Amino acid sequence: MGIVVQQIARAEQQVIERLAKAGVATVHEAQARKGMLASHIRPIYAGAQIAGSAVTISAPPGDNWMLHVAIEQLRPGDILVLAPTSPCDNGYFGDLLATSAMARGCKGLVIDAGVRDVRDLTQMGFPVWSKAISAQGTVKETVGSVNVSVVCAGAFIEAGDVIVADDDGVCVVKCAEAEVVAAAAEKRMANEDAKRKRLAAGELGLDIYDMRQTLSAKGLKYV
Amino acid sequence: MGIVVQQIARAEQQVIERLAKAGVATVHEAQARKGMLASHIRPIYAGAQIAGSAVTISAPPGDNWMLHVAIEQLRPGDILVLAPTSPCDNGYFGDLLATSAMARGCKGLVIDAGVRDVRDLTQMGFPVWSKAISAQGTVKETVGSVNVSVVCAGAFIEAGDVIVADDDGVCVVKCAEAEVVAAAAEKRMANEDAKRKRLAAGELGLDIYDMRQTLSAKGLKYV
Amino acid sequence: MGIVVQQIARAEQQVIERLAKAGVATVHEAQARKGMLASHIRPIYAGAQIAGSAVTISAPPGDNWMLHVAIEQLRPGDILVLAPTSPCDNGYFGDLLATSAMARGCKGLVIDAGVRDVRDLTQMGFPVWSKAISAQGTVKETVGSVNVSVVCAGAFIEAGDVIVADDDGVCVVKCAEAEVVAAAAEKRMANEDAKRKRLAAGELGLDIYDMRQTLSAKGLKYV
Amino acid sequence: MGIVVQQIARAEQQVIERLAKAGVATVHEAQARKGMLASHIRPIYAGAQIAGSAVTISAPPGDNWMLHVAIEQLRPGDILVLAPTSPCDNGYFGDLLATSAMARGCKGLVIDAGVRDVRDLTQMGFPVWSKAISAQGTVKETVGSVNVSVVCAGAFIEAGDVIVADDDGVCVVKCAEAEVVAAAAEKRMANEDAKRKRLAAGELGLDIYDMRQTLSAKGLKYV
Amino acid sequence: MGIVVQQIARAEQQVIERLAKAGVATVHEAQARKGMLASHIRPIYAGAQIAGSAVTISAPPGDNWMLHVAIEQLRPGDILVLAPTSPCDNGYFGDLLATSAMARGCKGLVIDAGVRDVRDLTQMGFPVWSKAISAQGTVKETVGSVNVSVVCAGAFIEAGDVIVADDDGVCVVKCAEAEVVAAAAEKRMANEDAKRKRLAAGELGLDIYDMRQTLSAKGLKYV
Amino acid sequence: MGIVVQQIARAEQQVIERLAKAGVATVHEAQARKGMLASHIRPIYAGAQIAGSAVTISAPPGDNWMLHVAIEQLRPGDILVLAPTSPCDNGYFGDLLATSAMARGCKGLVIDAGVRDVRDLTQMGFPVWSKAISAQGTVKETVGSVNVSVVCAGAFIEAGDVIVADDDGVCVVKCAEAEVVAAAAEKRMANEDAKRKRLAAGELGLDIYDMRQTLSAKGLKYV
Repeated sequence: MGIVVQQIARAEQQVIERLAKAGVATVHEAQARKGMLASHIRPIYAGAQIAGSAVTISAPPGDNWMLHVAIEQLRPGDILVLAPTSPCDNGYFGDLLATSAMARGCKGLVIDAGVRDVRDLTQMGFPVWSKAISAQGTVKETVGSVNVSVVCAGAFIEAGDVIVADDDGVCVVKCAEAEVVAAAAEKRMANEDAKRKRLAAGELGLDIYDMRQTLSAKGLKYV
Repeated sequence: MGIVVQQIARAEQQVIERLAKAGVATVHEAQARKGMLASHIRPIYAGAQIAGSAVTISAPPGDNWMLHVAIEQLRPGDILVLAPTSPCDNGYFGDLLATSAMARGCKGLVIDAGVRDVRDLTQMGFPVWSKAISAQGTVKETVGSVNVSVVCAGAFIEAGDVIVADDDGVCVVKCAEAEVVAAAAEKRMANEDAKRKRLAAGELGLDIYDMRQTLSAKGLKYV
Repeated sequence: MGIVVQQIARAEQQVIERLAKAGVATVHEAQARKGMLASHIRPIYAGAQIAGSAVTISAPPGDNWMLHVAIEQLRPGDILVLAPTSPCDNGYFGDLLATSAMARGCKGLVIDAGVRDVRDLTQMGFPVWSKAISAQGTVKETVGSVNVSVVCAGAFIEAGDVIVADDDGVCVVKCAEAEVVAAAAEKRMANEDAKRKRLAAGELGLDIYDMRQTLSAKGLKYV
Repeated sequence: MGIVVQQIARAEQQVIERLAKAGVATVHEAQARKGMLASHIRPIYAGAQIAGSAVTISAPPGDNWMLHVAIEQLRPGDILVLAPTSPCDNGYFGDLLATSAMARGCKGLVIDAGVRDVRDLTQMGFPVWSKAISAQGTVKETVGSVNVSVVCAGAFIEAGDVIVADDDGVCVVKCAEAEVVAAAAEKRMANEDAKRKRLAAGELGLDIYDMRQTLSAKGLKYV
Repeated sequence: MGIVVQQIARAEQQVIERLAKAGVATVHEAQARKGMLASHIRPIYAGAQIAGSAVTISAPPGDNWMLHVAIEQLRPGDILVLAPTSPCDNGYFGDLLATSAMARGCKGLVIDAGVRDVRDLTQMGFPVWSKAISAQGTVKETVGSVNVSVVCAGAFIEAGDVIVADDDGVCVVKCAEAEVVAAAAEKRMANEDAKRKRLAAGELGLDIYDMRQTLSAKGLKYV
Repeated sequence: MGIVVQQIARAEQQVIERLAKAGVATVHEAQARKGMLASHIRPIYAGAQIAGSAVTISAPPGDNWMLHVAIEQLRPGDILVLAPTSPCDNGYFGDLLATSAMARGCKGLVIDAGVRDVRDLTQMGFPVWSKAISAQGTVKETVGSVNVSVVCAGAFIEAGDVIVADDDGVCVVKCAEAEVVAAAAEKRMANEDAKRKRLAAGELGLDIYDMRQTLSAKGLKYV
């Protein structure tokens, strides 16, 4: 009963790159603090910072068959996003699948389950954000779906949404909002640069953001 | 209804440095195995080993306003300690707050919640021990308190207590006991050096600590 | 009421080395996907890849006495495996015990509990796979057993079984099956090399493994 | 920045009642095993079995203000569904809010957070399915949204979707699919009645479902 | 190295009874939302609602020796509060200890660990709030302390503090604040009665608490 | 690659009944505190107390096919024990399977995964001890094994071992040790009756078990 959606809308590559450059925390703020995946999703190695269009996978627990199907749907720059239909920490993905995905131009994987061969993946420079690292194998018995809407680590993701991922975790930007969010993120970064200088010089946030009166009005007492 | 305590007792800087040098495991043993924070508190990068006086923060879930208030109370060498009033893994703290805290001489942050901008924090050399890494943002709506007693990751911490933190986690030393514990830690280190040499030479703990008879008396059988 | 079994069967050293070389994911697949410890068991540092005969320890919660007893039973190349009798994340093991274990030729520790002195252990090159990192100390009051069967992180392990551990986690191979599994692992690696080349060249797993018809028969639809 | 959507589509009351009668497990099967909320959502008392249209709430952690806003949007037969924007187990809801909700004809609450006054709620016959029971209070400082799409306990829920809840947990049925699912559920129940009789008489599922050949073909061996 | 404090201050019995009558949620609100134990502490059976002075126990993981010591320190109306020195779910307490505690007038047990013989305890009417139910036994090898300050399920509790417990969980009231909190709780209950009637009659909290303007000022939009 | 072992050794029915009567806590103590399943295994309703021979099932995550196979292997008085090969909380078992199992004389189910139709199961009087309650469905695609050794909730269980289950959880007794354990349990119960009377009369465990001197020798101080 699975389906594979072959045509999906993607954001413009240049917009995606601007989101990658901004990083997760800034993008998340720039879109009014929505879109974060749960904090149990962690990178397998530090330092990767990417963005790409989501090719989504809904897979049964302990069954990685749909990854092969999804890889055929990848375009250069895409990111695989796998959500199991019920909680599972099996190692759905390893170095062979990564080799195949890289050959198709895939930038990385976000998976609310497990991954394996992490030393190889690190050496290959294929970043993964996962719930677990586990060599526990999977079967190829039950079909799932590709490029359908999924809930991954508590976030609703549609195929073609922009995934932004770095050491802080993973954030999803709706495809239609990508350009607006990129612009807001850049504005925010410029604004933060100015504040960073003042804070580094010893000014206090209490003064820069003019918080003292509000705090007092809310009842804060100094003793 | 929040309060900010402006005067707190701190241990002597030289005692704090001796505790930093001893590290968490030794300090914890030197004070009879008390004061450890729960093991879910982990450093965002490996290798930092610090000690400092606690500037404590009691903050509502998902509200980081009090961090700005606490930074004003910092003296050089202090460590920020944030305990949310109920479990929360939001990213309360990032690179701007770290810039501000460093400008005041802050050595690090211990937080039973989330932190973000971890790549920046790592590059800045600002160590954080946290429950989670998350870019999920917070609001500034509800007041909390600064320099009141808190329970952080299962440990009772009063403002001015000495926080010791390294790759093994975080331990708290009561301000009034800091000097005695520092001395006990140094004695313990000297003692361990001697034992380490004997163990490295192949002697067994069973013999060095004279355990064979006690084990036998407790019923241990060799088969 | 504890016992120490002094004679245990071990696999041949040359077979153990072949298993170490294959690594966890390959060994696990080579023995039909059994023997993985739960994914909460993680290495304290990246990059170690070892195999060795299990010297098993059944220990009470918060009591590390039996580690001293177990160290005497080690032969060069062995791996310590500790299972607490109920869930516990205390730091049972640190740099002094590691010094002693290394002096006996021990290759590493697998523990479904906590470990401490992780910076020292990393510098010493003594790898540990654990459930937690914690400096919380333990007592030496209650006897346990050494070289009895244990359930460690959900896996049944008998003394002398071969433990394989790397960045993907830990897998156990029955002593009697070690040689057969080593051969199957090597065959698998050769087979994977061929597939890796084809995948890197852009061929799809769908075609290499001839999956399209089966997927269609199971009801997968392309839309 | 919150919004309140005042007009939502609801399924027909008679269809909703048919889904209530079928119960969670049957409805879930009847719609191809989708729509289950995570199993950490549990009823505060046993025996309730309800269905109703979702009035959804997206609320900040530790802030229950939007519940008051949502109650105004209730129509008789509706079910409140609250998803916090980050994980939280505070007690958002108690007997006063339940009194107000009942006065508006509300049938129950599904909340991926905490609830309190559970003895009162039980006596009032107001069923709640929650992640936690906790008297920990909340604030009323930050606006959220009502009748927007939410992810609650891992399930994507739109306002007006039909919520089915009983001792097995909670399942969501898309508003547009409610009638089809109700019919499929009733067909399934009739079919199960027939099978139940055969099973009760001692026939085996192996024979009723004709599984022996398939099992053998997949490699099952009797020894 | 354990100690037993034999003289502790207790609140007046009549004040304790007023707190019991108010219940956990009301008491918690009456003292400005502090003092709740974590929500993983649950009653072993529904319907008990008690208050009493805390006789505190700090016990090693898996060692219930100090319960016998603590029982001697009980006075009629007291509640036992046990905090393990590190996380543990062993069954520290069962029907024999309950028989002994009841003979001394003990009203119940709060334990951040496990309990057993729960069917017997239910039949005896001895209420327990625990983290786990487990028959896993404990040893009597290591001393702990009685009537020292403990952190139990995230709350700081001193001997003689008033414990209030019901189906919503457990809340601690400082001994010195007990009378003030009892009075505030009673005032709150009276106030809630009035509101309950208005809400039951169909008035909205939005109007009773006059929230519409504030919500609008904070940016809430109706669409 | 699954197998079904058709002949297993069982303990005598009369011995099994004696173990059922003793209950979990007593049996666990009578066999030196071994054999407890982890405390996350909880009964779906209170009050059941059973014992029976284990018919074991090793099943893939999210696949309940082997339950049908196992039911054919049941003899009157047996208990089904299901361990998934990796963590899973799906609802493997519901009222139809229970009907079939009861028709074969099965006394109950122990499952380290989920169960559904719990209201029906309660009404049928078919007790289940599970990790979760969930209506999330499973597939029938992959074979597993029946009557092989499994690790279930951390305990090693062989087919034919005696399972004892009540409100305190689940304990396993090796088939060969069942008679000895039953006798030890009965002796223990007689002994406890005597102690219960003394404790109820107000005598202290400190005196009955003569603990005062040992406590003092271990360093306990009264202040």
